This record gives sequence, C-alpha cells and structure tokens, in this order.
Amino acid sequence: MKNFDFHAPTNILFGKNQLQQLPNVLEQYGKTVLLTYGGGSIKRSGLYDDIYQLVGNDAKIIELGGIEPNPRLSTVIKGVELCKENHVDVILSVGGGSTIDCSKAIAAGVFYDGNPWDFVVNDGIELTKALPIVTILTIAATGSEMNWGSVITNEETKEKLSFHTRLVTPKVSILDPTYTFSVPTYQTMAGSADIFSHLIENYFNQTTDTMVQDGIAEGLMRTVLHYTPTALTEPTNYEARANLMWASSLALNGLTGNGKTGVWSCHPMEHELSAYYDITHGIGLAILTPRWMEHVLNDDTVERFALYGHRVFDLELNEDLYITAKEAIQQTYDTFVKWGVPMTLPEVGIDASLLKEMAEQAVKHSSISKNAYVPLSADDVLAIYTHSLTPMTF
Amino acid sequence: MKNFDFHAPTNILFGKNQLQQLPNVLEQYGKTVLLTYGGGSIKRSGLYDDIYQLVGNDAKIIELGGIEPNPRLSTVIKGVELCKENHVDVILSVGGGSTIDCSKAIAAGVFYDGNPWDFVVNDGIELTKALPIVTILTIAATGSEMNWGSVITNEETKEKLSFHTRLVTPKVSILDPTYTFSVPTYQTMAGSADIFSHLIENYFNQTTDTMVQDGIAEGLMRTVLHYTPTALTEPTNYEARANLMWASSLALNGLTGNGKTGVWSCHPMEHELSAYYDITHGIGLAILTPRWMEHVLNDDTVERFALYGHRVFDLELNEDLYITAKEAIQQTYDTFVKWGVPMTLPEVGIDASLLKEMAEQAVKHSSISKNAYVPLSADDVLAIYTHSLTPMTF
Repeated sequence: MKNFDFHAPTNILFGKNQLQQLPNVLEQYGKTVLLTYGGGSIKRSGLYDDIYQLVGNDAKIIELGGIEPNPRLSTVIKGVELCKENHVDVILSVGGGSTIDCSKAIAAGVFYDGNPWDFVVNDGIELTKALPIVTILTIAATGSEMNWGSVITNEETKEKLSFHTRLVTPKVSILDPTYTFSVPTYQTMAGSADIFSHLIENYFNQTTDTMVQDGIAEGLMRTVLHYTPTALTEPTNYEARANLMWASSLALNGLTGNGKTGVWSCHPMEHELSAYYDITHGIGLAILTPRWMEHVLNDDTVERFALYGHRVFDLELNEDLYITAKEAIQQTYDTFVKWGVPMTLPEVGIDASLLKEMAEQAVKHSSISKNAYVPLSADDVLAIYTHSLTPMTF
Repeated sequence: MKNFDFHAPTNILFGKNQLQQLPNVLEQYGKTVLLTYGGGSIKRSGLYDDIYQLVGNDAKIIELGGIEPNPRLSTVIKGVELCKENHVDVILSVGGGSTIDCSKAIAAGVFYDGNPWDFVVNDGIELTKALPIVTILTIAATGSEMNWGSVITNEETKEKLSFHTRLVTPKVSILDPTYTFSVPTYQTMAGSADIFSHLIENYFNQTTDTMVQDGIAEGLMRTVLHYTPTALTEPTNYEARANLMWASSLALNGLTGNGKTGVWSCHPMEHELSAYYDITHGIGLAILTPRWMEHVLNDDTVERFALYGHRVFDLELNEDLYITAKEAIQQTYDTFVKWGVPMTLPEVGIDASLLKEMAEQAVKHSSISKNAYVPLSADDVLAIYTHSLTPMTF
C-alpha cells in the first residue's frame, strides 16, 4: 500500500427531507448565496421553490442557472464575476457533477488572480482560498459532492481537463434519494456507468496489496450492478436510488483510490470523446470500458480480471483464469447492453474521422502512456476507439 | 436505508514516515501540548523520542502517561486538571483505543463544568467545546482514531460506558503501519477481533436495504480474515499491518453503520465482562460472538447468516440456508481458535459466579432487550455467557 493523505470532510446529510436542515447549514457561511444549477429540472421538480421557501427570506440569492453538461470555462468565468460583483459568501450548488464541478472552479476562481483556466491546465499550482460550497445532489454519478476534483471544458481549445484542490471539497452535501426519482432513464444509466467506471479505474491498478480499498470497490460494484436495473424500471424505488446515491459519493472520495499509484485509463480516453463531441460522459465510459478490458488482458493482468469476475459477478474461479477473466469482460459488456446503453460510438454520433487526433490528444493530455494500469500509447488508444465503432462479439 | 448524518472529517496521514508531518500538524492548533500515552511501549519503540525530537523544541509538552487499558474516570479527571493548569491547546494522543478514548473524555472535560462522568453516563447531553485531538495510532483495533465515540470505565461503580460527541473526532490521525510491528501476538489478535466485531455488529441489523454499507463490511471482514494470520506469524509484514490498520479506522467511522437502526449486541455484553474483570475487550468479543450467533440464529436471521458465510468465507450458498449459516458460525469460531484466542471465559479468569449479575447489568446499561438485531433479555445474555464457559462443539 502506498502512502496517502485521506481527507473526506464533507458532512453528508442523507435521506428524505434533509433539505429542512438547509437554513442551519447555510447560516454558518453567510447571507449572500450563489445558487448554481443546470437546465432547469430543479424548477420542474419543485426543489427550486422549496429552496427559496426555506432560505429566500434570510439570504440574498444570486443565480447562475443553465450550467451545461461538460461545464464550460466561459460559464465558470461568468460565475466568478457574479461572485465578485455581489460579494458572495457561499455557493449553493444544486444538481449533478457538472453543476458541482463548475461551482468548484468558480469557488477557487474568485480568489485567483487571472483566468481560471490557468489552474485547470496547471493542475496542482497553489491556490490559497476558495468560497465554501454546499451541494444538493440530484443525480448519482460523479461523486463530486464528496471530493476535491473538478472537470472543466475549454470550448475554444476543445480541452476537457481536471483540477484538484482540497479547498473546494464541499462542506456539506444534502443527499436525498427522492431528488433522483425524476432522473430520466438515459441519465440514470449514464450515472451508474460513471460510478462503475470510477470503481473499475481504481480497482485495476499496479498496486495490489490494497485489499481494503479493493474490498470496498467490489462491494460498491455489486451494489451498482444490483440496483441499476431496478432504478431503470422503477424510477421511484427508494432503496435502489438510495444505494446508488451513496455508492456514487463513496466511489470517488478516496476510499477506493487512496494508497494506489498511477493514473486512470478510460477517463482520459473518454474526456477526448466528450470534449470533441460533447457526448454524455458516463455513456462514453461504458462504451470504452469493456474494449479497454479486452485490450489490456494479458498474463500480467489476468489474475486481477478473474478476481473481478469472482467477486463482482459471483463467477466461479476457473483453473484457467483466462476463462473467468473473459467471462467477466463479457458480463461487463452485457450489463451495459441490458441497461440500454448505446454501446458503439456511431450510436452517439462519433465516426472514424477524428479518432486518430483524439487518440493523440488523450496521450498528450494525460500520462496514460506511462502510468496507466497497462500503459497505453496513441496506437493503443486508437485501437480501443476503433473497436468501439462496432459491437463486441464473444 | 435510514436517514443519516455522515461526518468523518479526520485527516488520515497514512504510511511510512508520516510522523515527519507532525510539526506542521500541531502548529495549526497551538504550542502547548498534552501528550497522552499508555504503558510505555512508545518509549521502548523509540516513538516517544522521535516526537520530542520533532516538536520538543517548538512546543511545550505536558505528559499524561500510564493510561490503562479500559481507561478510568480517575485518569480522565487527572488529564482535565493538567490541561486546565497548563492551558493546553491540543492533545497529542499516542497509542491505541484506550489512550485515544481517554483523550477524548479529557478534551471534552476541559470545557465541561462538572464531573466528566456526567456526560458519559448521560450520553448525548449537550457539550459545547473540546480541545482539538491529534492521534498517532500504534495498534489496529478500536477505530477511535477516526470517530466520535469514547468508552470510559468508572472503577468505583464498575460501569464501562460510552459517550459520543462530534467535538472529539480527531482532527488528524497519523497511521504508520510500522508502529504496529511491535504489537505483541495477544494484542494483535485482540485488535483484529475488535475490528471484526465492529463489522459484525453493524452487519447483523434489522435494516437490510443497505447493500453499500454491507458490501463495505464484507470487504473489510475478508481483509481482517486474510491478514490477521500473517500479522501474527510475521509481525513486521507491512502489507498485513497496513491493511489491518486502515480496516480498523474504516470499520467504525460510520461507513458500515450509518443508515441502519438499533443497537449492538455483543459490545454491551462484553462491556460488563471487562468492567467486572478488566479483561481485554477484543478477547471478550471473540469469545461471545460465535455463541451470540448460535443463540440468535432462527428463521428470520438465517438468510443474513448464510449471506455472511457466502460473502465473507466464500461458502457456497446451500439450498438449505441453515447449512451455510451454521458453517459460517463454525468458521467464525474456528478462525478465532486458529488465531490463538482463548475461547472460553475460564481461560480469561471468569467463572460462573457473577454471570447473572453481569447479564442483568448488560440489559440495564443498554437497550439490547429492545433494539438489538434480535432483542436479548437478561436470560438470553445469561445463556450466551453460560455457553461461553465451555468450548463450542459443532
């Protein structure tokens, strides 16, 4: 196990009606609130009105609505300006990963002297201060509600990159599973694919003496597999929505990744797809993951893939580990198919024309060619992209 | 899943040489430090000297050594007086659960107007302030390094009770697995039994729609089973010590218990044993756990016991769930036997004479007769105690 610094200080208020605690929560941070949200689903669901009813009298609320999926630098800059003009004390971020990620960049951008893109493109440069963030989560997916990362897209340069600073870890996140009852089928499956991918990315790692982290990941993967079909067919099933919601936060708050080494594989490849084509992140991950698995299966990795099949899909460990490993990869693919995920690139509007360029960018924007579980060259990435053009056969 | 409030803000600095960060850590809280520790093993190991070398010049260090296992109220009171006399800013607690629990009571006691036993015996009364606590963990066991609970023994009334306040959650805990290399065999197995028991207590619960929490518990239980034999035979095996150490913190920081209902079963029964006989807590738990399992196995609980066998011991799920369940209980017992735990009460100096009195106290000091997984009357507790007088047969 590698040395690590684990810090997930977000206070999670989980369950029905936890919104009632919002006035007490916000009061700790100040009276002027930047309310950030996305496309307006919170208005249709009534959550927007509930927020105003609870805190509208006591707080001055400034709004930044319309935050797009794959949140853009221009929106971040707009948010920073709003905060500075209005002397905002706290950001109340209501939505999913995109809204929260955008809010994180705004929170840090307010105290940064320069273009916020600087600290995204130079991840790790020292930031000294950020506005406190409180979130109300409305979709189980990215885990941004309980971690210190944020992914921002520069629409001009077509770059989608992440930055990290402990300063932007949300102070409090309200997780009421009923807010995810209205998440549409497509977003529900994309969210589950995203959670699953975070677990996969951490699970397949060169550091293997991490039974604690891996045991947690296995449990969370089983949870996602068990409850996603229920959430898709019975969107208001509380048990399913609750387990998926809590799994999303725990999949990416350090528990499954701390103590490991290297970098992720599928996320850097996917980030190019959604930077170029603005596709839904989780769907891109679902498409790439089983092709990546097939591509990196070899004598060094077969044991881990077999263990994955055993622990996550309850497969018997065959003496020939390749049999169990290949069955596990097929079951991964079949799972996404059964959920209803469009499992080829053409189905999400991506053809072969830019694959080579994106493959080169994936290698350029990350260190997957050196530090991934199995290092991936631009040619490897291109092969994985190319295999994603057509359905897999087993 | 029940509503819950999860908050585990402790910053964990995990791994070799993390002690080097101590000066920066303490600096945030002040210059006057109460150093708490137990029987002096930190002097033999050199950790005591290392601490003085790192912070002895900059900080004023007051010492409270000799904190006993099952820490006593009189020691808490002594610590409170030391803090008040010396205007202590921060408590540096170096040791295991006993030292940290004692430090928590001191931290809260400094700002409490009255005898600290008040807030132990009336768990939940409002406390307003506590000294910050930094811990350096030297044994994997109680999880106190990352939670808000503390168990204190009143030696006069023979009561061993716990109190809880978020105020005493450690700010920073340094977890260097090499500090546990010198933990003797008996304490290592007692620590592992304690971790395992925390997981068992949370796993067997009336709330069953908690696959996230249960999956995490299953993974941590597998980890304890896998690595304890290694730690016992190769005390300096880093991989084993690291996994046990991290498992100890995660077993009892809310991850496996939040979202559930009711109270624990074996801990209230064990607390009477160690209050009356001052036995090692983890050993008492190991003795009681399989007897308790056998006692509460019935048509309502058999499914959960079978699942436990399947997920934790990799048993095949027999069509007759009782077969799997009983096999799981036997394997639990056999595991402790193999570790070398003395598995009957007489072996730890307890005879039949006070069993009835302790059974009555267990029911009086807790709500196990109403709120346990399977409610336990004084007669039930007495039966479990009595079964613990002789070896189990299967």
